Amino acid sequence: MSAKSRRLDSATLAGLGENGLIQLLTRRWRGGRGVRVGVGDDCAVLDGGRKGEWLLYKTDAVVEEVHFTAKTAADLIGRKALARAVSDVAAMGGSPWSALITIGIPPETKPQRIRGIYRGLEKLAREYDVSLVGGETTRASKLFLSVSLLGRMKTEPVLRSTGRAGDLLFVTGKLGRTIPGKHLKFKPRVAEGQWLARKGFARSMMDLSDGLGADLPRLAAASGVGYRIEREALPRNPGASVVQALNDGEDYELLFSVAPGDVRRLLSQWPFELALTCVGALTKGKTNEIRHGGYDHFKQR
Amino acid sequence: MSAKSRRLDSATLAGLGENGLIQLLTRRWRGGRGVRVGVGDDCAVLDGGRKGEWLLYKTDAVVEEVHFTAKTAADLIGRKALARAVSDVAAMGGSPWSALITIGIPPETKPQRIRGIYRGLEKLAREYDVSLVGGETTRASKLFLSVSLLGRMKTEPVLRSTGRAGDLLFVTGKLGRTIPGKHLKFKPRVAEGQWLARKGFARSMMDLSDGLGADLPRLAAASGVGYRIEREALPRNPGASVVQALNDGEDYELLFSVAPGDVRRLLSQWPFELALTCVGALTKGKTNEIRHGGYDHFKQR
Repeated sequence: MSAKSRRLDSATLAGLGENGLIQLLTRRWRGGRGVRVGVGDDCAVLDGGRKGEWLLYKTDAVVEEVHFTAKTAADLIGRKALARAVSDVAAMGGSPWSALITIGIPPETKPQRIRGIYRGLEKLAREYDVSLVGGETTRASKLFLSVSLLGRMKTEPVLRSTGRAGDLLFVTGKLGRTIPGKHLKFKPRVAEGQWLARKGFARSMMDLSDGLGADLPRLAAASGVGYRIEREALPRNPGASVVQALNDGEDYELLFSVAPGDVRRLLSQWPFELALTCVGALTKGKTNEIRHGGYDHFKQR
Repeated sequence: MSAKSRRLDSATLAGLGENGLIQLLTRRWRGGRGVRVGVGDDCAVLDGGRKGEWLLYKTDAVVEEVHFTAKTAADLIGRKALARAVSDVAAMGGSPWSALITIGIPPETKPQRIRGIYRGLEKLAREYDVSLVGGETTRASKLFLSVSLLGRMKTEPVLRSTGRAGDLLFVTGKLGRTIPGKHLKFKPRVAEGQWLARKGFARSMMDLSDGLGADLPRLAAASGVGYRIEREALPRNPGASVVQALNDGEDYELLFSVAPGDVRRLLSQWPFELALTCVGALTKGKTNEIRHGGYDHFKQR
């Protein structure tokens, strides 16, 4: 056994953390035929068949007692499972297209509850023009939903890795999970993401799922730059503290960087009611993905 | 509450069964922009961008204590999870292309075991030229893997629904799960499926995952015809009874129907070492998906 294998053998999930685990698992994954972006961005980006067209490819799971509880309204579980993936397509500026739904079901589950979950899925799919084209049912000890989503776009996808030092950082909407249940009812920012990509304002972009304090370091690291957060400037939900705006996950707002020369035009042309706030800048130097709080599935609390 | 809702409310999963549940959940799913085939076939078939090119889209999950146990070798868990989806792409005659891997992990799991699962995934991906382009890790109470796979093809996909009365039915390989561990190491029949689609021999096709006795009625029902099985003619693994060849799941062989006039050419041109056996025919009349055994996730045993 090599020294590396021994180290891995004695490692624990809590010790590795979510980022460490993902890096460990995917470090040997390379691109391939028709793969423009693989691991490490909001979606994979694949050749869309026609020149200048791209497929966005994403999967996302929600698990009982991790992302929702036995008391969560069924339709909101389904809604959230699909909305999370739609948000990732939005974060590259794409249009959600079609989805596959896998559900793991404990045998004692009432069919009525499963039907409710699918009603929530179907409603969100209609709102965002997503075709539900298949999936699977399997037995499981805890309820889970795993959603796979394909998106399409005819403009260049906006990546996490293309920010530059000097770019100003913006977020849509408000941060901090202060409204009970908000995390189940969030609106993926599809129209906003598409507009930012089409207009070319967003030089890099991602959606906020684990909190600005965890997600911004990922964008900065992917772009090979540092960052600065204007903590006092963070747009906060009513009653949210600065720490909550930084650390609470599940905002599902867009975080993007804008070249300094484009900021004035962005602010004058922004056509949405949704708030748009400058929260800092990308800076020279490196980010080694130091976490400023945020959510980690495997760290001990 | 409507009469239908009341009936659903008092229904149980065991009473509905897997087919009943899937029909209940997806009965309102229609196609959409660029969707050629949605629910009900081995894969969804989507517009591939260029004329005459198609995307095949599939998801599949394996769950601890349902599809494998805590004692199953880690690499074989990963192998099987991806191989099942590859087999579905093969069953339409397509080429597997790129995959997303979602893993749900109990917190006490050893990172070494997870790494082993991914090694098995990576090995099969190399064998079948699949690019691993992303995925997700989440906490879960039981280990599960959910795989999403995209395939491509430049010929017409072979569907379940296009068989005709009078077609002869063939299976590749041998049936019945008699070799311990065979279900973990099966070879998806990609080259065979591609050849059958390209040559136009297969008029309808699917892969056998729940056993011929459960899967053939699905193909016949999708095609709107009946079927006849030559029970004594079934190709069986060493020691397998006829009942086992009919009912054991996880064969992952191809089942396809051939126009009577094409059978002689098929048999003379078949270029593979793999056995090819006529097991019956599609007949006039309707199949209401009567089950001849096979595996159901939700029926009581």
